[in-house]
This record gives sequence, structure tokens and C-alpha cells, in this order.
Amino acid sequence: MAPGKLQLPIALDAMGGDNAPACVLRGAEMALIRHPGIRFLLFGNRYILEPLLVGIPVLKGASTIVHTEAVIAGDDKPSIAVRRGRGSSMWLSIESVKEGQSCAIVSAGNTGALMAMSKLILRTLPGISRPAIAALFPTLRGECVMLDLGANVESDADDLYRFAIMGDAFARAVLGLSRPRIGLLNVGSEELKGRDEVKAAAQLLKASAADLNFHGFVEGNDIAEGTVDVVVTDGFTGNVALKTAEGAARLIRTYLKEAFASSPIAKAGGLLAAGALGAVKDKLDDRKRNGAMFLGLNGIAVKSHGGADAYSFCNAISVAVELVAHHINTRITEEITLTGQLQLPSAPLDAIEGEPD
Amino acid sequence: MAPGKLQLPIALDAMGGDNAPACVLRGAEMALIRHPGIRFLLFGNRYILEPLLVGIPVLKGASTIVHTEAVIAGDDKPSIAVRRGRGSSMWLSIESVKEGQSCAIVSAGNTGALMAMSKLILRTLPGISRPAIAALFPTLRGECVMLDLGANVESDADDLYRFAIMGDAFARAVLGLSRPRIGLLNVGSEELKGRDEVKAAAQLLKASAADLNFHGFVEGNDIAEGTVDVVVTDGFTGNVALKTAEGAARLIRTYLKEAFASSPIAKAGGLLAAGALGAVKDKLDDRKRNGAMFLGLNGIAVKSHGGADAYSFCNAISVAVELVAHHINTRITEEITLTGQLQLPSAPLDAIEGEPD
Repeated sequence: MAPGKLQLPIALDAMGGDNAPACVLRGAEMALIRHPGIRFLLFGNRYILEPLLVGIPVLKGASTIVHTEAVIAGDDKPSIAVRRGRGSSMWLSIESVKEGQSCAIVSAGNTGALMAMSKLILRTLPGISRPAIAALFPTLRGECVMLDLGANVESDADDLYRFAIMGDAFARAVLGLSRPRIGLLNVGSEELKGRDEVKAAAQLLKASAADLNFHGFVEGNDIAEGTVDVVVTDGFTGNVALKTAEGAARLIRTYLKEAFASSPIAKAGGLLAAGALGAVKDKLDDRKRNGAMFLGLNGIAVKSHGGADAYSFCNAISVAVELVAHHINTRITEEITLTGQLQLPSAPLDAIEGEPD
Repeated sequence: MAPGKLQLPIALDAMGGDNAPACVLRGAEMALIRHPGIRFLLFGNRYILEPLLVGIPVLKGASTIVHTEAVIAGDDKPSIAVRRGRGSSMWLSIESVKEGQSCAIVSAGNTGALMAMSKLILRTLPGISRPAIAALFPTLRGECVMLDLGANVESDADDLYRFAIMGDAFARAVLGLSRPRIGLLNVGSEELKGRDEVKAAAQLLKASAADLNFHGFVEGNDIAEGTVDVVVTDGFTGNVALKTAEGAARLIRTYLKEAFASSPIAKAGGLLAAGALGAVKDKLDDRKRNGAMFLGLNGIAVKSHGGADAYSFCNAISVAVELVAHHINTRITEEITLTGQLQLPSAPLDAIEGEPD
């Protein structure tokens, strides 16, 4: 968003996350420098927040505290959080989006609770029955958007099709791409052409009246390769893929640390290459890509990592600002409307895609 | 396998793979040093193989060529390969296992064709309806077995349960573990407890009469963490997870290469740390873990990477030798028999696992 005089109100669940409220406030302070047009509604305990704000006068001047003492704990079950958490900082901050007091809500709190509350309070956009979680993934060419990362465990062809529209809008807003390439995650064995719902979703995307740049199927290795800008998959596969990649990256980091500590010569080598290795670390720094959106809801809800530090939380706020500035939900709704009459054919799948062999 | 006087015949599809037959033969030569008790049935064109064997007298002395000129190409469709490839090196080598002329078959050829032919010729073990592809994955604690990596695109609870038994037997044979810890791959969001079939498979594993060390659910990051020794999942998720991790590893390798080439000082650092970095490269070397088994078939069929070099192909032969030596299929059949009466309850899933909330 271009800096300006806009007063863009963002709701922050000031009490959510492992390092709340300190990192939430410090992150908000950093975001103010990046986006001078925003102001904050801080939901949380004023007796904790006010003393902290004394040390951050710039933020204090751009914020309004909405007091509540109720907080959703990190281990609260979503169903219980929804039932008993109505006055909590998380609930009230989401509600402020629904009431039009803020343009977006950012929370580092309990993911399941945030998802459940957001769905309940904001409801889904017209034509969307299942929201999806979208986030960025590093690639050889830059970054790509991947969704769904776990909002659903099963998705049919129609869901996947709508995820593609939502991911496209997300990539336009956050990555600034004009026609993001969209890929459907599938398996590539010659024998198996993938799951029926994935094949049917490909047919829907090919036939779509929406303005989508559909590349076709991609495989797991294509994600980091940067073959496409938007990787569409169901929430089970997406969640496993994301976490498997994180685990693999951690494994390699551990090996490298051990290697550079293994001898005085290796240590010296590590010191000489420290600058270059720092650049690698920076590229792989998850904090840069913090901020997953719950796409498909009637309002912008961004989830920060629970363990986010100030810099990381600031980036989640930036995601929210970009999504607001690019009117992501307007774009999604327009594209869904364009495809209004498109329905998943009820004919058997064989009839949709007759494999020649 | 302990070296000895055993004459363990292994069938090799000498013409399968990008580097066949040269790397197949060189790999076989290396395997002979490692396992002096084996001998080879080499299926392929004698006019190509015989001149090559002249230069490898040790292998020549331990091999019998079974001549055929027909070869399955890397891009042949499995269905076509099965119909038209009856006299091919791949077909005949698999058939030699069925006929009892060899104890196992190793091929670096077309994966889909190998799977389809192996299923057709060898058939599945009693009590197994779906075979699975199993392979090793590096972890912080060593290695783990992951399956299914793409033999199926959908799996029900019963399939997953049988994959666990097969993976357990594979880990005992190839990793030499006495009671491998088994994990079911799932998503960990607080709200979502995963797919119904995964939850039902967990119930089957908990109730099983087989000798299984069931750990419970694991998430994607647990794979590289080494939380369990056997990671059980459906072939779609397993294939995507494996390839996503490979892609992430390639991304990091590329970043590191660029970093060490970015300045003279970084280059010098890389040279100093070369030994230590070589150790990391070695740990991540996929060639060490080459050799995926098609588990659940009435015979041992091992798939080497198509691009395998001699060392890599030798490791695939070693996997076959270990599986033969440990009578993997006897173990699988015994465990399946133990669970003979265990059937997936036909009651609705809610009745199987009543979530308290």
C-alpha cells in the first residue's frame, strides 16, 4: 500500500501468541513505519497494554485499546473457545471486522480457535462453502502461494476449483503478479493420473470463464522449483507437504551446523563464508513469509505464527494491509460470479475425462 | 546378509533405466563384492551385454544372460507395456521370480510399467489387496521407512493398517530394528483431527493382535525429525510429501552453491569447510537410499531410480538382498494371519472414535 493519509484500521488480537503482547506491540510499531496510513485497534487487557504503550509513544498515538480480560489459550479446543470465548480478545477483534470498525484482523493466537471463530463471525463469501488457509513458500524463482494448508481435511473438485480462484487473488495481492500461474498438486507416476477430484478440478479450471492462468498438474518437487505461482491442493496434503518441507529444511540446517562445528578448519571456513551463509539463512527465513490468510471469509483474517517475534508479526500485518489494499475479497467475489453457472458435472468421472488408455 | 556359499540368484532388468546397461552391470559388480553369495540372471540383449561383460570378468563368472531384444521404454504407458511387453527384459526378469529361478528382481526401468507388470505376474500376498511402495527417508536420528509413496492414490483404513504391517517388516529387514516405531501421518491442527480413514486406521492399529509398536499420529515435520521409524500414509500424500521434501532440499542446495560462489572470501570459506560439507552431502546423498520395494506382492521387486549410477544401483541390489535374507514376505504373511479376524468395523466412524468434544 502506498503510504498516505488513509486511516486504515487494523484489529490486533494483542493477547494471542507465545510472545504476546510484547511482540504484538513491537511488531505493530514496525508496521506503522512501513505503512504510515494504518492505525490499530488493540484488543486486550488495558492494565497490561497501557504500561507497555508508554514506552512506544508512536504506536500509542496510532492505537485504541479495546479492553477485555478474557484470553483464548493456545491449547483451548476450538469448539470450547467458540462457546466460551465470546468476550475474548480474539473474538472481539474478529467481530470488529464484521462490524466495519476495522478492515482486517491479525492474531498470533490458537489457529483452530481463530479459524472456528472467524468462520462463525465473518461467514463465508457468496459462492464459497469452504474457506482455505493460504501462505507463501520459498521457491527457486521467488515465492509461491500454497493452499489449502489445513482448513479442511477433504476437498472435492469444486472446492479445489474455488481454492484456485482464491489463491490467484492472493498471489495478485501479496506477490503483485498480474496473471499468476496456477498448478494443481498431483502425483506423477505414469500409471496413476491422480485422484478423481483433482482430475475433475483440472477440467473445471480448463473450462472456467474466470480470468485464470491454469498451468495444469504439478508435483511435490515443483513447489520449491517455482514451476507455478499458486499451488492448489486439499488441506490434508497441503498441511503434510508444508510441514514435511519444514522438517527437511530443519534437518539440513542441523547437518550444516554440525558440519561447521566439526573441526577448527570447518569453523574457520564457516566464519569466512558467514556473510554468504547469512544470505541463505535470510532467504529461508520463515519470518519473512509470516502471515497466513483464512481465504474465503467475508472479511480479512490473518494468522501469524504463534511464536512470532516483532519482525515476524510486522510481516503478518503487512500481509493484511496488502490484502485490504488490493481488495482481495472483491476480486474473489467477482471471479466466483463469473463462474456462477459453472457446476461440477454430475456425470461419472470417466465421462468427464475419458482416458484414451 | 552374511557372506557365504549361498547361491542367491537375483534377476536384473539389465536394459532398464537411463544408464542401462552400463550402470546396471557396474552396480552388479559392486554388489558382488558386498554380497559374495549372490549371482545374477541378467535379462537383456546378449549382443550388447556380452561385450560389456568381457571387461568385468568377476561379474561374468557370476552371471547368466537371458537373451531378449524387447525393452520397455521409459515413457511407455503401463497399460501398453503390460499388453505388449511380454517378452521384454522387465517382464522376463519379474517372471523369473515367479518361476523360482530368482529370489528378487531389481529394475531401474519405467516405474509404472514395473508396478503394473509386477502386480500382474507376482500377484499380491494373501490378505493384501493393495501393494505399496516403500523407501527410506533421512532423519535426524538416522533413517525411516515411508510408505505408500504412490502405488495407490486412495487408501482406506484397512489398507493403511496393512501398510503398517508391511512397513514394519521392511524396517526390520532393511534398518535392522527389532521393534520399529510406527506412526500414521496426519494433520495436527487443533480443530481437525484428520481424515476418517486415518482415525479408523489408528483404531485398527491400537486393537491389533500383530506385534506392532504403534506410536500414534505424526505430522509432516516428524518425518525428518525421526519421531518414528515407519511413516504410514496413502500413496497420494506420501508421493507429494517425498517430492516436496526433495524439492526443498534442492532449493537449499542451490542457495548454498550460489552463496559459496558469491565472493572470493565465501569461496575460500567453502574450500576450508569442504570436508565437513562433503559429510553433509554424503548424509543427504539419495543414492545411499536407492531401492524402493513394491511391498505386498508375492515376490520381491525392487525399483531403482531411473537415473541411478553404479553405486546407486548397487544399493538397490543390497535392499533386495536384505529383504530376501530377512524373509520379508514370510513376516508380512505371518502378521497378516495374526490379524486374520480383524476387520474394519462396519459401524459409522463416530461410533469408533467418539470425540468427547
